[in-house]
Amino acid sequence: MTNQNETNSNFRAIDEETGFVIGEDFVRFEQKNDAFSRSTWDEELKSKRAENFFQAYLMPNAKPRKGEGYQHLDYALRNAAWHMATSLRQFSPGRGEGFQDMFTIHEQGWSEKVEVGSSEEAAKVVKNAAIMLGADIVGIADYDERWVYKTTFRRQTLKPGQSNTIPTQTEPEIPEHMTSCIVLASEMPLSLNRTVPSALSGGSSGIGYSRDASTCISLAQFIRNLGYEAYACMNDTGPSIPYAVQAGLAEYSRSGLAITPEFGSRVRFTRVFTNLPLKADKPIQFGVKEFCEVCRKCSDSCPPQAIAKEAPSAEQINVSNTQGLTKWTTNAEKCFKFWCSQNTECSICIRVCPYNRTFNNRLDRAWRWLAGTRLRRLALWVDDKFNSHTGKKAGWWWNERNAGVKRYSSLSIKK
Amino acid sequence: MTNQNETNSNFRAIDEETGFVIGEDFVRFEQKNDAFSRSTWDEELKSKRAENFFQAYLMPNAKPRKGEGYQHLDYALRNAAWHMATSLRQFSPGRGEGFQDMFTIHEQGWSEKVEVGSSEEAAKVVKNAAIMLGADIVGIADYDERWVYKTTFRRQTLKPGQSNTIPTQTEPEIPEHMTSCIVLASEMPLSLNRTVPSALSGGSSGIGYSRDASTCISLAQFIRNLGYEAYACMNDTGPSIPYAVQAGLAEYSRSGLAITPEFGSRVRFTRVFTNLPLKADKPIQFGVKEFCEVCRKCSDSCPPQAIAKEAPSAEQINVSNTQGLTKWTTNAEKCFKFWCSQNTECSICIRVCPYNRTFNNRLDRAWRWLAGTRLRRLALWVDDKFNSHTGKKAGWWWNERNAGVKRYSSLSIKK
Repeated sequence: MTNQNETNSNFRAIDEETGFVIGEDFVRFEQKNDAFSRSTWDEELKSKRAENFFQAYLMPNAKPRKGEGYQHLDYALRNAAWHMATSLRQFSPGRGEGFQDMFTIHEQGWSEKVEVGSSEEAAKVVKNAAIMLGADIVGIADYDERWVYKTTFRRQTLKPGQSNTIPTQTEPEIPEHMTSCIVLASEMPLSLNRTVPSALSGGSSGIGYSRDASTCISLAQFIRNLGYEAYACMNDTGPSIPYAVQAGLAEYSRSGLAITPEFGSRVRFTRVFTNLPLKADKPIQFGVKEFCEVCRKCSDSCPPQAIAKEAPSAEQINVSNTQGLTKWTTNAEKCFKFWCSQNTECSICIRVCPYNRTFNNRLDRAWRWLAGTRLRRLALWVDDKFNSHTGKKAGWWWNERNAGVKRYSSLSIKK
Repeated sequence: MTNQNETNSNFRAIDEETGFVIGEDFVRFEQKNDAFSRSTWDEELKSKRAENFFQAYLMPNAKPRKGEGYQHLDYALRNAAWHMATSLRQFSPGRGEGFQDMFTIHEQGWSEKVEVGSSEEAAKVVKNAAIMLGADIVGIADYDERWVYKTTFRRQTLKPGQSNTIPTQTEPEIPEHMTSCIVLASEMPLSLNRTVPSALSGGSSGIGYSRDASTCISLAQFIRNLGYEAYACMNDTGPSIPYAVQAGLAEYSRSGLAITPEFGSRVRFTRVFTNLPLKADKPIQFGVKEFCEVCRKCSDSCPPQAIAKEAPSAEQINVSNTQGLTKWTTNAEKCFKFWCSQNTECSICIRVCPYNRTFNNRLDRAWRWLAGTRLRRLALWVDDKFNSHTGKKAGWWWNERNAGVKRYSSLSIKK
């Protein structure tokens, strides 16, 4: 990492397009400081409850209870939805693939670089492949070292009782000569999301993770098959959201999540870093920032009050926030502790967001247009009045949603 | 296996519904006799070419050539599409998971059987879960021992030069106390299928296999999470098609493939066997048998002439056909040898089939209705006249199909 001021000036152009406000005091995030990592070493987040929360993803340790949405069937589906991601994570024993380390589940590719034309042609090839290999949306950003962890964290080398010795390594996992970051996204199923809060609704994240894992691993293999380097990353390596915004897939929002025009924030991002030069996409604006300024549905609905009610600021609530970024800042400690208290993940902020729609119909698209105009307060009123973001019970999901349906059929997609 | 006559009488009811014609001389298929297994031990199918064909799925051994559709990019995508299936296959070293053995990539489930209601309620639970975990369509059949291999085959214990000693085991892999077989299907992407014959189009199978693997493993994990036994099977354990027909997902066709109302034969089936009692679905008829009687598009288009032009018969062309089944019988030797000569799989019979449509529009559904009436010859004429099943070039797929599309968006499915 070169001098911060120099770096900042290098990135001024893209920051103007994304609207990122990055101070002189910006410091790259250290992976050990995310809430999940901290729960293994930081007394503030380390607890028996946190341990139980993670353990509950393996069935014998799930603790189903009586409340609707937290029963045996709900945990059984949630954990099955996570199963592919969990299995792939354990492909290399001792590594947290896709969670704290990039994936290594690759075959040998081609030994020399194959000619794939201009960076524009290469981008088309890669996007075609990405969609076919399972991504719902795809965008490309230039490699940006700011969004690579300053230090990485190794949970697997953390020894019992070693909470004061945090295992980190200085070098990022991926080589510095990467040129592009391909951002892929998987929609999280709406029907499961509607049952938030519940263990059942965790299946929505699990399916997102499992699909993401498959998609990014396959796309990285495709690029390796062309003789280039490619690294498939999920939660590891660096934060996803800045890349999703820079790749033109989404806008940053009050909840701290990125909002896509296709699925709102009901989406999971994954990335493939490569040295295959690819023409980057332009960031998009469709009115999310201005809409979030007048809407507080996520912050009002957050049980632990972890989401900013105020204007964007550079305040670092705790070490889980990046230093030197002016933005709506969430309190990851409060958020994570609420997850642990529920014994499952929470996505209330995703469910209640007015952009949590399907956009495969004219009314939703008309609403999105309205929300992007000066009539955004009208859009908010329309959303209040006509679009139900209220939760559904798990019983609805299991019994009523498809009641009487003998067989099912997806729409035929990806022609 | 009990006395054949007794067994046959037990299954008379379901055979009447499916239209299966099963003789007194029926013998369960031996896995060693499928064309893939035979290519490892039977001089008739064993060749350097066959070896190259299998090797080409790993990139360093692919032999891209100049012809459109067989170039480097095409093999790169095909092999990336197969990557998840290939990786999962190798999860347990030495086993051909999903290809010759059932999958074992499972976490510990629940230790005792959880109450899930009547077999009808359990079927609804399982179908809900199957669709959410990635299946495009799902159906349930009762366990039927006829469609479990009489003997299984172990490629990994076949020693070099041991072609006369075929490693088999007498016992089927799955326990006999299974009660149900859940049949899941994944659509194979139409756009890739349109480029048949080509290496590129093999990506269509690869994506089907990779999705299938994920779906059946996840569903089996869900059932295990409820405390029941569940075995995830792809090509192993027994033939898929009879189960797909018995589960009401498809009708048997001239090409030897099963035709679904949703995707025609452009679909891959996978199965989960379980001892969780599930109410079986009823077989369906929507006119495929009668339509195939007047249509010979698949048999006329098959380069090695491997598909029956005549009426269904009990003739066993070679050991790769099941003894005692009256049906349209394909010549697996000719089919497999053609694949090897092309250095990639072939799906011409899928591409040219008049049922190879999307059925997400009224015209296709109207055509399907017409094909199921006495006016089926008119439907065939309409198909000839208006529906292009002619191949597209790989260049179309890479350059024209999505030309100018900056980002992509799937339809929002599985709400």
